[in-house]
Amino acid sequence: MIRVGINGYGTIGKRVADAVRAQPDMTVHGVAKRSPDYVAVGAAEADYAVYAADADRADGFREIGIDLAGTVDDLVAESDVIVDATPSGIGAENRPLYERHDTPAIFQGGEDATVAEVSFNARANFAEAEDADYARVVSCNTTGLSRFLAPLHETYGIDKARVTLVRRGGDPDQTGRGPINDTVPDPVSIPSHHGPDVQTVFPELDIDTIGLKVPTTMMHVHAVNVSLAEEPDGVDDVRDQFRAEDRLLTIPEYAGIDGAGTLKDFAMDAGRPRGDIWENCIWGESITLQGRDLYCMQAIHQEADVVPENVDAIRALTGLLDGPESRSLTNETLGIDLGRLRGRENPTTEQQAAERVSSDD
Amino acid sequence: MIRVGINGYGTIGKRVADAVRAQPDMTVHGVAKRSPDYVAVGAAEADYAVYAADADRADGFREIGIDLAGTVDDLVAESDVIVDATPSGIGAENRPLYERHDTPAIFQGGEDATVAEVSFNARANFAEAEDADYARVVSCNTTGLSRFLAPLHETYGIDKARVTLVRRGGDPDQTGRGPINDTVPDPVSIPSHHGPDVQTVFPELDIDTIGLKVPTTMMHVHAVNVSLAEEPDGVDDVRDQFRAEDRLLTIPEYAGIDGAGTLKDFAMDAGRPRGDIWENCIWGESITLQGRDLYCMQAIHQEADVVPENVDAIRALTGLLDGPESRSLTNETLGIDLGRLRGRENPTTEQQAAERVSSDD
Amino acid sequence: MIRVGINGYGTIGKRVADAVRAQPDMTVHGVAKRSPDYVAVGAAEADYAVYAADADRADGFREIGIDLAGTVDDLVAESDVIVDATPSGIGAENRPLYERHDTPAIFQGGEDATVAEVSFNARANFAEAEDADYARVVSCNTTGLSRFLAPLHETYGIDKARVTLVRRGGDPDQTGRGPINDTVPDPVSIPSHHGPDVQTVFPELDIDTIGLKVPTTMMHVHAVNVSLAEEPDGVDDVRDQFRAEDRLLTIPEYAGIDGAGTLKDFAMDAGRPRGDIWENCIWGESITLQGRDLYCMQAIHQEADVVPENVDAIRALTGLLDGPESRSLTNETLGIDLGRLRGRENPTTEQQAAERVSSDD
Amino acid sequence: MIRVGINGYGTIGKRVADAVRAQPDMTVHGVAKRSPDYVAVGAAEADYAVYAADADRADGFREIGIDLAGTVDDLVAESDVIVDATPSGIGAENRPLYERHDTPAIFQGGEDATVAEVSFNARANFAEAEDADYARVVSCNTTGLSRFLAPLHETYGIDKARVTLVRRGGDPDQTGRGPINDTVPDPVSIPSHHGPDVQTVFPELDIDTIGLKVPTTMMHVHAVNVSLAEEPDGVDDVRDQFRAEDRLLTIPEYAGIDGAGTLKDFAMDAGRPRGDIWENCIWGESITLQGRDLYCMQAIHQEADVVPENVDAIRALTGLLDGPESRSLTNETLGIDLGRLRGRENPTTEQQAAERVSSDD
Repeated sequence: MIRVGINGYGTIGKRVADAVRAQPDMTVHGVAKRSPDYVAVGAAEADYAVYAADADRADGFREIGIDLAGTVDDLVAESDVIVDATPSGIGAENRPLYERHDTPAIFQGGEDATVAEVSFNARANFAEAEDADYARVVSCNTTGLSRFLAPLHETYGIDKARVTLVRRGGDPDQTGRGPINDTVPDPVSIPSHHGPDVQTVFPELDIDTIGLKVPTTMMHVHAVNVSLAEEPDGVDDVRDQFRAEDRLLTIPEYAGIDGAGTLKDFAMDAGRPRGDIWENCIWGESITLQGRDLYCMQAIHQEADVVPENVDAIRALTGLLDGPESRSLTNETLGIDLGRLRGRENPTTEQQAAERVSSDD
Repeated sequence: MIRVGINGYGTIGKRVADAVRAQPDMTVHGVAKRSPDYVAVGAAEADYAVYAADADRADGFREIGIDLAGTVDDLVAESDVIVDATPSGIGAENRPLYERHDTPAIFQGGEDATVAEVSFNARANFAEAEDADYARVVSCNTTGLSRFLAPLHETYGIDKARVTLVRRGGDPDQTGRGPINDTVPDPVSIPSHHGPDVQTVFPELDIDTIGLKVPTTMMHVHAVNVSLAEEPDGVDDVRDQFRAEDRLLTIPEYAGIDGAGTLKDFAMDAGRPRGDIWENCIWGESITLQGRDLYCMQAIHQEADVVPENVDAIRALTGLLDGPESRSLTNETLGIDLGRLRGRENPTTEQQAAERVSSDD
Repeated sequence: MIRVGINGYGTIGKRVADAVRAQPDMTVHGVAKRSPDYVAVGAAEADYAVYAADADRADGFREIGIDLAGTVDDLVAESDVIVDATPSGIGAENRPLYERHDTPAIFQGGEDATVAEVSFNARANFAEAEDADYARVVSCNTTGLSRFLAPLHETYGIDKARVTLVRRGGDPDQTGRGPINDTVPDPVSIPSHHGPDVQTVFPELDIDTIGLKVPTTMMHVHAVNVSLAEEPDGVDDVRDQFRAEDRLLTIPEYAGIDGAGTLKDFAMDAGRPRGDIWENCIWGESITLQGRDLYCMQAIHQEADVVPENVDAIRALTGLLDGPESRSLTNETLGIDLGRLRGRENPTTEQQAAERVSSDD
Repeated sequence: MIRVGINGYGTIGKRVADAVRAQPDMTVHGVAKRSPDYVAVGAAEADYAVYAADADRADGFREIGIDLAGTVDDLVAESDVIVDATPSGIGAENRPLYERHDTPAIFQGGEDATVAEVSFNARANFAEAEDADYARVVSCNTTGLSRFLAPLHETYGIDKARVTLVRRGGDPDQTGRGPINDTVPDPVSIPSHHGPDVQTVFPELDIDTIGLKVPTTMMHVHAVNVSLAEEPDGVDDVRDQFRAEDRLLTIPEYAGIDGAGTLKDFAMDAGRPRGDIWENCIWGESITLQGRDLYCMQAIHQEADVVPENVDAIRALTGLLDGPESRSLTNETLGIDLGRLRGRENPTTEQQAAERVSSDD
C-alpha cells in the first residue's frame, strides 16, 4: 500500500484525498491544512490524520478539538508520495521540501510547467511519468482539452485546433472573485496560456486558444474547432470515437441538459460525491463536421476533472500499474460510469439526428 | 408500511422520494413524471416505479428504456398517501383526483393555503394535521421562518417580527430565470405574501415581511428582526434556545462560512446527498440583542428544507407517530445531525464574543 | 425632409428616433408605443408625437397626460418611411400594414431574412438597398461581424471565418431573463444562426459560428478567427486596416479598458447619449496573426450598434445620399468620432508591442 | 468664484468635477489623477487641468499627450477648497497635506468619521459645516438614509429605524469584485457600520442596520422600517412628506420601473449625464403604514447620490450660501427635477391605491 500525503486540503486536495482512499493499492497517510476552519473539521470528521501546514496556527486546531498528527515536514517524511494541492505558485516553493526528504511529488496545473520533469495527462502521456520523480497534472482546462484531442490526434491527425475557453470567474465558495456582470478577455493577448499548456502534453500540436472569464461558478465551457488532417467518414464516426473514451461523456439530446446547472443536478441525482463530474461533458447535438472541420462545445468541472488524473499520476510515479490498468481501476473505484445516459436513445432517432447533421456538411 | 406516491418528480419530488425511502415505516410506491429527460433517467436508475403524468408522452419514456408502471391515476389509486410536488398551482388542479380516489394528500407551499385544511410545519403545528386528509407543507421561506420563530414565540413571546427576504432568483438548473444584474422588489407591495403565510401556521403572530429577488441560485437569505415580548437574559440565552432546536444550525465564527457557497461546500464535505441543507443556517455572529429587539441573518436552502417536513407530514396525516417521535426519526434516518460544527468552539472565546456583543446593547 | 415614423419605441426605437432627429435631411414624424409607462413618458418629454400601437390602451396614455397623435395606422399613412423596431417576429406581422399604405419600411435583425428584399449593412452592401422598398438591418451581432469582415474580405480575401459569440443574457432592463449562473450553449447546434445571417450580407463567405449566452447585460463579446486568403505584411498592416474603418474602435493597451463595464464608463465620460457605443470595440492587444490566421476579440453594444445603420438604411431606401456620404453624415451628426483614444499611444511603445506580437508568429 | 481642486478623479471625482463646473459660483481649478488611462483621457478631453497624483508616473501622461499642470501639491496650494475623492482610507492620509497648505477640504464617506469635524448631509445638517475647515460627506448609503429619515424625524419623530441594506457587490467597472453567485452577510455582525454612520448625522437616532452584498453592479436597495413616534394621518400623509423633498423620487406604479435596470434606463432617457440618479428612488407601491410602523423600499445609485452633496458641502465650508439656497441652486444647475414622472398619475387611481393600502392596516 502506497502511503500518500496530501499537502493542501482545499478544493482539489480534499477531493484527491477521498479518491485515494477509494483505491485498493494506496492509502491516505495524512493531509496538511493551514486554517482551522470548516474544511479542517471536514478532514477530521472524515478521519484523516491532519498535519499543520503552518505551525503557528496549531493552537487554532486544538481549540476546535482537532489533534494534529504533526507538521507538514513530518507528513512529507512519512509519505511515499506527496500530492501537492496548494494554491498556484506555492507548489514550486514546496519542491525543495520534497527534495530534502527524497519524496516524489505530484504538482497541480497552477504551477509553471518547469516545476516538474513531466506535464501529465492519464489518457495522453501516462508512460512519460513512469520514470519521473516529479510530475505536474495539467490544469482542469488543459486536462479537458488533452482528453478531447487525444483520440482525434490518433485517429485523424490534427492540422490545427482553435479553442475559445469561456471560463467560470470563481468557484462556488470564492465570494471575493468577480466579475459580477462582465465578459472579460483573460488574458487579452492571444494565445492564452492554455494553448502552450496543451503543448506540454502534445508537443507538436498546432493549437491557438482564446480565454475569457464570465460571471459563473459551476463549470468552464469550451467552444472547440479542430481542423482534422484526414476527413472522418461522417459525424457518426467522430461520435463513436468519443464514445469509446472512458472520460468523455456525450450528452444526448433527449436528456434536456442545457448547461452546468442541469449537469450538476444530473450528477447529484447519480449520487456523485460533491456532485463531482470527472468527465468532459460534450453536447452531442453540438458535434458538427464541415468537411475536415470539426466543431463542438464541452463543459469542464474545474473542481473535479483532475481528480482521477492525480490518482493515475500516483500510479505512474510509483510504478504500481500501467496506464490502461490504472485508468480502469480509477474509473471503477470512483464510479466513472458513463452508461447512465448512454444506450437509452432510440437508435432510429439517433440515426436520424446523425443524418440531419450530415446533410449540413 | 405506508405506501407513498410522489406526484411530480422534480426538485422537491425527487428529494422527498429519497427521504421517504430512508424511513423504516414507509415505502415509495412510485413516482409520476411528465418528461422523459435526465431526471426520469435518475428515477429509473434509482429503481423507483415510474408512472406517466402525461399519458401522451408515454412513448418518450419507452424510447429511453423506461418501462412505465402505469399512469398518475393508477399511482393515486394504489398509494396510501400522495405527496404532490407538482409546480405551483397544479397541485390545486390535482386535488379532485385525490378526492376521487379517497387518497389523503400533501401539497407544497406554492399552492394557495386554501388547497388543504391545514398549513403544516413539523415544529410548530404537527398535531393540527393529525385529523386532516389534506395538508400543505408551507414554502421553503415560511418553513424557515416558522422553525426560527417557534422557540422565540414559546419562550419570550413575540410582539412583532419584521423580516427582509433576499430571495434567490432561480434554482441552479433554471437557466431561463433572472434577474441577471438587478435587485428586484418582489413583490413591490408590502407585506409580501410570506408574512400572511407564516400566519397560516401562527395565526396570532404580528409579522411584516419584505421580499426582494437577486441574481443568485443557491439559497435565500433572511435578515430578521423580532421584538420580543419579554427581554431575554442576554444573547447567550437566545443562542441556547436556538441550539436546543434540531433543525436550526448556528454557524460558529471560526468556521469561516461566509455565504451559501461555503455552506453548500460544508454540506458536500459532510456527504449530504445533493449537498442538501435541511436546516436553517443562522450566522452565530449575527445574533444580536438590543433590549427586546433580536436581530440575525439566516440562510435557507430552497431545494431542501421542506423535505423532512414532508416526511413528518406523512406521519401526521397517517397517524404513524406523534410530532417529537416523527421529527426524531426523520432526523436520524436522514442524518440531520448538527454536531459536526458544534462543541468545537473554544468556550472562552465564545464567552468573550457573547460579552462583546452584549456590551453593544 | 424625409418624414420618418418609428413603429415600436423600445430599446432600439427610442435610440433610432434620437438619431434620426439629429440628421439634417430627415425628421421624426412620430413614434408608435404600446404601453403607457416610463418609456412613453420619455417620448412625450422628448416632444415626439406619440401614436397608439394598441388602440385599446389609449386611455392609459391619457391618464398619464399624454395626448395621442393617432394610431399606428395613422403613423404609417403619414410617414415617408417607417422604421419598424417592434419585438422579434412582430415586424413580419406588420409588413402587410406597410404594404397597404405603400410606405417603405426598415425591419430589424430579429426578423427572418425573408421579411425584406435585402439584408442591410451600411459598410458592406449599402447600394443593394437603393432600389428596395423593404430592407432589414441585420442584428447587432451580424452588424458587428459584417463591419469587421468587410475590410479583411476586400484586402486579403477570407478563406474561412470562425466566431464564438459570448452573448449577454438580457438587456439591463430585462429582469425576467437569465441565466443567473450558467454558460448556456444557445443554440446547442452548430452553426448558430449568426453564420447564415452574415451570409445574407456576404453570400459567398465561408463562416461557422458558435453561440453561447452568459449572465451579463452590457455587451456581447466575439472571439474571432479568420483564415485569410492572402497573408498580410505583419499584424501592423491589419491594425491599419481596422483604423481606416469609421465604425471600428481599436482599444489601446494603455487605456486600461478590460471589459464592457469600463467601455461603457468610457462612453459615459465622452458624453455619449445613454452611454451608447455605436462602434465595434476591438481589443488592440488581442489582434494576433499566426501565418494567415488572424485572431482577435471584440465587444458589441447590443442596444446601439445598429442605430447608425438604421439611419443609413433610411437614406439608402429613399435615395437621399450614397453610402459613403450617408455614413459620413451619420457619423458626424451622432458624434461617432474615434479620435478620443487614438493617436495618444507612444509610437515607440506601440512599435515594440507590434514586434513582440510578431515574434510569436 | 471659488476655485475647487478635485483630488482623485475616479467614479466620484469625475462626477463632482462636472457638477462643480455646472455651478455659477465655483470653478474646477484642476483634478489630480494617478493613472494615465482612459479616465485621464476623459479629464483631458473635458479640458480639466490635470495634476499628477503620483509624480513617478508623470511620463505616462506625457506619452499619451496629456500636459500636466503640476503635482497634487500644486493643486492643493492653488485651490480655495479641495474635494478629496481618493479611495477609502487615502483621504485620511491626505489630510496633513491639506493642513500644510491651509486649504479646507471635503472628504468622502469611505473615510472614518474622525477625518473631519463634521459628517455632512445637505438636507439634514448643512449648517453644522458652516464653521468647519474639514467636512466629510457621508457615504452613498448613509446619504440615502439621511435624506429619507430627515422629514420623518421632523414631522412624526422616530422611535426606531431598522434597515436592511442589500448592497451591490461592485461598480460596473470593477471586474475584480464579487460575489458572482452568493448573498453575503457583510458584515456578519449587527449592526453594520451604516447605523452608527447615520448617527454621525442624527446623533440621537435609534437605528439598527443589517448589511448584505449581492451580485449586482447598478444600485443599492434598502428595505426600510421606521417606527414613528406619532402616527401619521394615513399613508397619503407620508407620501406627501416624501413628495415635498427635493431629492426623494417616488416611483409611480404606472411607470413599470421594477429595478435598477429600468431606473437607469429612465435616467438615460431623461438625458442624465452618465445615467446618474442623484435622488433616492422610493417605490411608491412599497410605502406602507401598519399603525406607527412605516415600511418601504428605495434604490440608491452609489456612484451619484453624493455628488450634489459634495457641491453643497463646498458652499457650506466656504460660506457661499445657506442650505436651502445651495440645495436649490445645485438642483437647478444639475437638473434635479422630479417632475418628469410626477403629476402624471390619475388622481383617482392613486386615491384608490392609497385606500387599498390603508385597508391593510
